[in-house]
Amino acid sequence: MAASLLDGRLRSARETNDLGDVLMGSPDTTTTAADWEDAGAWTVRRDGFDAAGLRHEETVFTIGNGNFCVRGSFEEGHPKENAGSFMHRVWDDMPVNVTELAGLPRWWGLDLWLDGQRVLTDDDAASGMRRSLDLRTGLFARAFTWQADPGGARVEVSHERFVSLVDPHAAMLRTTVTLAEGEARLRVRAGASIHVENTGLLHWRLVGQSAGEDGVALVAVTRASGIPVATVVRTELSAPAEFTPGDADGAPACDYVLTLRAGQPVEIVRSVGIVPGLDTDRPLAVAREASDRLAEQGWERSLAASAAAWRQVWVDGDVEIDGDPEAQLSVRYNLFQLVIAAPRFTEDASIGAKTLSGYGYRHHVFWDTETFMLPVFTFTQPDVARNMLAYRCRRLAGARAKAAHNGFRGAQFPWESAGTGDEVTPTWVQQDARPEELVRIWTGDIEIHITADIAYALLQYVRVTGDEEFLRTQGAELVLDGARFWASAAVEEPDGQFHYRDVIGPDEYHEHVDDNAYTNHLAAWHLRSALEVWDHLQRTAPDVASALAERLELDDAERARWADVAARIHLAVDETGLIEQFSGYVGLEDADQAVLRDPARTLSMQQIHGIEGCNRTQNLKQPDVLMLCYLLPELFTPEQVETNYRYYDPRTDHELGSSLGPAISAVMACRAGDPETGYAHFLRAARADLLDVRANAADGIHGASAGGLWQAVVFGFAGLTLSEDGWAVRPALPHSWTRLRFSFHHRGVRQVVELTA
Amino acid sequence: MAASLLDGRLRSARETNDLGDVLMGSPDTTTTAADWEDAGAWTVRRDGFDAAGLRHEETVFTIGNGNFCVRGSFEEGHPKENAGSFMHRVWDDMPVNVTELAGLPRWWGLDLWLDGQRVLTDDDAASGMRRSLDLRTGLFARAFTWQADPGGARVEVSHERFVSLVDPHAAMLRTTVTLAEGEARLRVRAGASIHVENTGLLHWRLVGQSAGEDGVALVAVTRASGIPVATVVRTELSAPAEFTPGDADGAPACDYVLTLRAGQPVEIVRSVGIVPGLDTDRPLAVAREASDRLAEQGWERSLAASAAAWRQVWVDGDVEIDGDPEAQLSVRYNLFQLVIAAPRFTEDASIGAKTLSGYGYRHHVFWDTETFMLPVFTFTQPDVARNMLAYRCRRLAGARAKAAHNGFRGAQFPWESAGTGDEVTPTWVQQDARPEELVRIWTGDIEIHITADIAYALLQYVRVTGDEEFLRTQGAELVLDGARFWASAAVEEPDGQFHYRDVIGPDEYHEHVDDNAYTNHLAAWHLRSALEVWDHLQRTAPDVASALAERLELDDAERARWADVAARIHLAVDETGLIEQFSGYVGLEDADQAVLRDPARTLSMQQIHGIEGCNRTQNLKQPDVLMLCYLLPELFTPEQVETNYRYYDPRTDHELGSSLGPAISAVMACRAGDPETGYAHFLRAARADLLDVRANAADGIHGASAGGLWQAVVFGFAGLTLSEDGWAVRPALPHSWTRLRFSFHHRGVRQVVELTA
Repeated sequence: MAASLLDGRLRSARETNDLGDVLMGSPDTTTTAADWEDAGAWTVRRDGFDAAGLRHEETVFTIGNGNFCVRGSFEEGHPKENAGSFMHRVWDDMPVNVTELAGLPRWWGLDLWLDGQRVLTDDDAASGMRRSLDLRTGLFARAFTWQADPGGARVEVSHERFVSLVDPHAAMLRTTVTLAEGEARLRVRAGASIHVENTGLLHWRLVGQSAGEDGVALVAVTRASGIPVATVVRTELSAPAEFTPGDADGAPACDYVLTLRAGQPVEIVRSVGIVPGLDTDRPLAVAREASDRLAEQGWERSLAASAAAWRQVWVDGDVEIDGDPEAQLSVRYNLFQLVIAAPRFTEDASIGAKTLSGYGYRHHVFWDTETFMLPVFTFTQPDVARNMLAYRCRRLAGARAKAAHNGFRGAQFPWESAGTGDEVTPTWVQQDARPEELVRIWTGDIEIHITADIAYALLQYVRVTGDEEFLRTQGAELVLDGARFWASAAVEEPDGQFHYRDVIGPDEYHEHVDDNAYTNHLAAWHLRSALEVWDHLQRTAPDVASALAERLELDDAERARWADVAARIHLAVDETGLIEQFSGYVGLEDADQAVLRDPARTLSMQQIHGIEGCNRTQNLKQPDVLMLCYLLPELFTPEQVETNYRYYDPRTDHELGSSLGPAISAVMACRAGDPETGYAHFLRAARADLLDVRANAADGIHGASAGGLWQAVVFGFAGLTLSEDGWAVRPALPHSWTRLRFSFHHRGVRQVVELTA
Repeated sequence: MAASLLDGRLRSARETNDLGDVLMGSPDTTTTAADWEDAGAWTVRRDGFDAAGLRHEETVFTIGNGNFCVRGSFEEGHPKENAGSFMHRVWDDMPVNVTELAGLPRWWGLDLWLDGQRVLTDDDAASGMRRSLDLRTGLFARAFTWQADPGGARVEVSHERFVSLVDPHAAMLRTTVTLAEGEARLRVRAGASIHVENTGLLHWRLVGQSAGEDGVALVAVTRASGIPVATVVRTELSAPAEFTPGDADGAPACDYVLTLRAGQPVEIVRSVGIVPGLDTDRPLAVAREASDRLAEQGWERSLAASAAAWRQVWVDGDVEIDGDPEAQLSVRYNLFQLVIAAPRFTEDASIGAKTLSGYGYRHHVFWDTETFMLPVFTFTQPDVARNMLAYRCRRLAGARAKAAHNGFRGAQFPWESAGTGDEVTPTWVQQDARPEELVRIWTGDIEIHITADIAYALLQYVRVTGDEEFLRTQGAELVLDGARFWASAAVEEPDGQFHYRDVIGPDEYHEHVDDNAYTNHLAAWHLRSALEVWDHLQRTAPDVASALAERLELDDAERARWADVAARIHLAVDETGLIEQFSGYVGLEDADQAVLRDPARTLSMQQIHGIEGCNRTQNLKQPDVLMLCYLLPELFTPEQVETNYRYYDPRTDHELGSSLGPAISAVMACRAGDPETGYAHFLRAARADLLDVRANAADGIHGASAGGLWQAVVFGFAGLTLSEDGWAVRPALPHSWTRLRFSFHHRGVRQVVELTA
């Protein structure tokens, strides 16, 4: 049927698509570690192209600047793409998931025609594609050869792009077209388009557009949240061309026609400014300024300015690993992906679970951010870490509303957070298999540990950076009001202990459990820490302390109660030192090791057993108790750590459970004296995105895994620990690593650690 | 802020939109009955334009041909539009509501520029707009004056369109531009565009497109269901013009520039073919043929051919009412809307609750179709009625699957039906007010009466038309397998009776009720009727009977059980003749007449009390028991009808409850000897769409109200009844009606009824 859908007269755009092709699903292909390596371990490469892997590769080649990112989507588009560019704070409503970042109008698109034929990469006309991402400079480059008909004109097309690390609103793209021989007619169409979608959903209304020789402008506004965004794209060609403006609705374009000659490559340079009305009340003017500035500086100087900023990022944060090219590249790559998504220019955004690189989890911010990603910035880019923490402090109203809604006092942070700070976890979602039967998502109701996780990250930041000013002006209030939540949510029972019942711990294979060890310990820690913060403030900034006490109506009696609750929270440890994950866990049916360790397994234990099945067994999505030991090592003896590691690690679905698990499992393996297992866990995290070992990287970067990877190296293999008077390492390098070098900031001073095997 | 979003250089499309305007909601304006009248009562008119009423008026001016419809959306578009064109059977998946008709690519759009300025109607440049829909021919016309700047060129723009009633795939549009004085440069852009949406949701992927002097072609395919649709638009101008093809992605266009001179109007005629791959394996070729045929015939002849088909529709179905222009126009208008939505060309579609005129209920087919709309066709266009019934017969598999899923035997028809015949009622929906708390929709689970409603309409069709062939080949199987469902779903209890518990009757203000009188009576009727059908078949077509018995494994014992169940279904009538709507209804708190009859009330009783509140009171969304009396008059004495009318009519939320209610309430008022109240009910139905008295006509035509309106006239005011040997009338005309004339088909013979006051 497909062929008869078209006829000879369909001559313009996309006439060669095959219908069957359009409709086909996109199973991802498998690449190997070697595909990504280069000698210097600074470049992520992919030679060749298989459309089935496109969506994964769009994620891999995401670039950005801490304000906006763009997936590695093709300038010419592709029928199987899941293109997208996301900017912090540009939230808009959506069904079920409440809110998501509206994918920006398409600013990266460029269309070429050679002798009247559209240059597309979804058929055999394109060959020899290669892509590379230079982590040192943030430059993504892609090139291919194109020849529509045997004997027809042949061109080499090269596309490069970077998002400026020095201007939150700027990106630049350069396309070079080189004709192999003779002459040919080249048509170039560059512009911006409102015809983008968030996986089928529309977020924009057109406000205005223009196209002229100095470029195109497009102003659009999000439908529900009413955020205007102005996009300006200036285009300059290195050769004279006939110009026509294109004014299709929602897609202003600059259309050029020129004669291409062999040996005389033509360069098309685009300077892009994208400005939301959140930053200025004249976004269009600011977007024009950003675009003009790039155009004036030109490609080389603009790239150099951005690359200089990247150089500083690597001075502050690079991790050098000798002897293991895959580890080297992976660690750098994951750092890169965190940096481009971390809020560099605002205190009103943080990193979503899938960063700014895809549609997964709709850019919502989970505990993944504070527990897994934030420490990387605390240690290497404290200013960014502060932005991320300020994002939470500025959303205390949402956390207080959530606590009040649940009948608690203080601040209970939402499980999923977005623009406002209100809870945005979906309550009921459709399953693909039986869409009429909705699944209840309980995490927004009862996965309560996040409030302590945020306080933990905040106090770690203060301890590492010494940023007392942040603690006084913003942080202390969050810690104190969070403690108030924990005290009000704890229930005193006849056993004289306080309990948190009907919760979900980090291990989400078990819902509605009582006295989850992780939650209870963190709650007690949070209460104790709040009291320490209070004492510290009283000592160091009594004015701040009394102002806070007044504002929060916090008195001695309440603080005494916090101490009482903290001291009497139920914490179960058996005579062997085993910490039971929650009440009744050890009595559950044991995990079936034959299934769990089957190397051919392709389904998670939850997919195999269902959530009810998981609830009945000891299978773990991630090792809850080990996470506790990781965060609060002072509470447990080395013997206890080992006992718990030996118990919980083998019961964990490391391969297909939570992507949060492997990196921290790597640390705990090192601490338990099992670095080889730790290295296996490390590789699982390292490969989550580059090699797509979980087959879901198409949805975006696994941000927690990326942050965890750095922690695995620094806190696991290097064994870095901080104390009041300094820091220490306790290395346990993997066999192949001959040298490990990294740096971090400690109380404003850069520290360098170099370890050799 | 709005002004600074734009600057002087935004010169092309839509540059004059004000941002505040784009974001504002659209409360509908109020029009009066007189606005719609003309002397001949054949034309629906609207003079003037207020954007706040646009979405309602788009619904009102919907035209179509029984295969596809187009809302009265503007050629030039409008920021507040909810544009759409829908074709039967082009279903595609959507979240929550499972499936909907994908709005067709935009084939009706036309853009004009006068001396470089875009001719738009969303600002003061346009004036004097008038719209009219000629019900005799199906021609929708719209005209306005446009002058961008004082002293600038002024034009009169006239747009006309019709969808061909003789070609399922064809529509034609004519635009005339007349310059007031001097000369001006006119630019015309005509094409098709994939950039359409179903209220924010995308359904299409582009397959191919082309643009040339002979028009544009666009092939798109629905995303989930994979239905290709080819759209071809040929454009012809009455004056020479400079042509440029437009090849923006997804929006192929023909672009013309010409000089416009005063006194020399320019005509732009577009010939449109739209063909789904469901009809042919070469949709693009067939679309070209349809478009070419129109272009060859030209506007006048093509319109005449379609108008001739309309003439026959009116010969068969017109209702003439003298003395009441509003009633006259309303009845014709509602008939028109039903005819354009009724499946003329296929047995695989039926009429959705909101016809093909909007997004309400996502084009799903409810009992509204069989009980309210189908009788109109049974009596006036039996071929169309047969198509609609065949749609159900061809979906027995879905009904059987639903029965089996619920543990029943036989065929249980879905509450909401779409392409496959599977149940597509959403189970949980978001409320606007608190989107995080979903509302459970129970109708798909327990509003079971629809199976009998379908059988009722089917047997009425057979009785009225005498179409025994349909009964034998398709209809009998549905009736028999439906009876099997009723027998298996009835529960015998210790009282010796059969009960249907936990159901919803037609009155949806009461959920989870036991022994709903309507449901129980219709179930008993269905069982009895199935036995009669069986006896009839055995007598008249014994081969068919035995083949059916074999296929359905239907034996004497089962039929005996049907008779037994039918005889023992619980049917409660008290000593006064009052039929209790369901067990316990009369014991509920009585309806508060002060609230219910408050003329200033703007909220439905459900909005006032909540569904739980309604469950506790006798408030009715629609009069369930009266509906029963309406359908099965042979079961009740005139005294009983009056008793129940006096009880239930005053407890009904006629104004803002179900839009299904008023028309049938009008019939029952006539039967109970209260025709003046009947006329008041009649007007409520008549005004549902034309005057938008329920403030929701923007979502589409109230199909059941439209069908009920015809029934109110024919079965209410005329009092038509059929018997084995003929028909009779028992008129009760409203005071103002001096003459009522209508016709219907009875066993293949056209009958004309003329009543005078």
